[in-house]
Amino acid sequence: MSDQPGAADEIMDGVYHALRAHGYAGLTMQDIADECSKSKSLLHYHYDTKEDLLVAFLDRVITDSENRIAAHADDPPAERLVGFIGWFVFDSGAVDREAFHIALLELRTQGPFNEPIRNQLARSDDLLRGTVVDILESGIEEGVFRDVDVGETAALLVATLDGARTRQITLSRGADAVDGDGSEGDGGDPEGSGPEPTYTRAVAEATLRRIVEPLLAEGAELPSLEAGIAAMAPVDESGSE
Amino acid sequence: MSDQPGAADEIMDGVYHALRAHGYAGLTMQDIADECSKSKSLLHYHYDTKEDLLVAFLDRVITDSENRIAAHADDPPAERLVGFIGWFVFDSGAVDREAFHIALLELRTQGPFNEPIRNQLARSDDLLRGTVVDILESGIEEGVFRDVDVGETAALLVATLDGARTRQITLSRGADAVDGDGSEGDGGDPEGSGPEPTYTRAVAEATLRRIVEPLLAEGAELPSLEAGIAAMAPVDESGSE
Repeated sequence: MSDQPGAADEIMDGVYHALRAHGYAGLTMQDIADECSKSKSLLHYHYDTKEDLLVAFLDRVITDSENRIAAHADDPPAERLVGFIGWFVFDSGAVDREAFHIALLELRTQGPFNEPIRNQLARSDDLLRGTVVDILESGIEEGVFRDVDVGETAALLVATLDGARTRQITLSRGADAVDGDGSEGDGGDPEGSGPEPTYTRAVAEATLRRIVEPLLAEGAELPSLEAGIAAMAPVDESGSE
Repeated sequence: MSDQPGAADEIMDGVYHALRAHGYAGLTMQDIADECSKSKSLLHYHYDTKEDLLVAFLDRVITDSENRIAAHADDPPAERLVGFIGWFVFDSGAVDREAFHIALLELRTQGPFNEPIRNQLARSDDLLRGTVVDILESGIEEGVFRDVDVGETAALLVATLDGARTRQITLSRGADAVDGDGSEGDGGDPEGSGPEPTYTRAVAEATLRRIVEPLLAEGAELPSLEAGIAAMAPVDESGSE
């Protein structure tokens, strides 16, 4: 791992852009070097192997998620839960985000064969499920949620949202889904009849109605999915994705 | 595509075993030829490229799923729905099944870049969601289920079960999870306190309680998850997996 934070940041940005552009399977140290304008030998000075670099990248991605979740730790539990669900929603034109998650999914397929990657995946799973458990426990304590099995609910929500994302990205046409003008984010509309909701959006709405609403205590209310999506969006996302 | 059904079956078995043993990314025509005791030139006679062969394999896998679903089309709707959910459940020692689904997951990451693969994935998605829609519509007609939004419910169930499977296989230790005696299927038990339920099993149980039970009409009952798992298991699975 680098002892120069500035260089490490630049290298991690390079991994991010290289993964989006090349995917995981065919990725080379040279691709990453090209994306961050570093020499391949500098990369090898900081990271012995491509695997070390990708594990450091996963570590960074999960740490970013931890920070994003922590920034909302004091929000009301119902807002936090809808924000968590909204975090997984994206429209069909979000090709950069799709490409990134396809590359992450490729990395995830290495879990059974690669212990350092598997350890990062387990850390991510603990983070996601632990976050939902924490939200539910706070909400139960505050009387917003009924007294439900929090571990079961957390596993159900994380599997559901992850599954919707996997189905959306693997069924997508990828970069071909971009509209003629090259813009992203409006979901495309070949039929002219308004875009179909994406898999992530349809499942997030269903999750709110079928799984989350029945958790609410008498009189408690949920914010809208749109409010949840907005709450968890990074400040710069509208520009870069 | 082969015009000799016998040879095609043998080649498809070869793809299955080669995918389990080598995964998708590094798979070669030679690996497949070795697994089915055919020559590489024979494979190329039937299939121009590795991609053609893998698309034919996906086609075969989905057709098998269609047949397995069709065999239960006349069962009562509540049994069919629990069978569908049970179909996704497996224990942590099922290393062959995990390896196969990891290879399929690798193939799925090619969806955005490869139209023939994407078309097969879309066909699989239509099959899975269409099956749930069909089960729910039958059940509503028979008065077993309440009159719910069947499309929304189908998307929710398929995302949930697929997500649980993806998390289970990517978080697994793969072949390292096999017990010392080499046997599979008992889930391993390093602590001696009974195995934790796997991700697929925990989520299937939660799905029944949280999503499916609220669909039931007054007085209707669900079979157990165990009955559902048994109903959809292939006759030879206990031996081969």
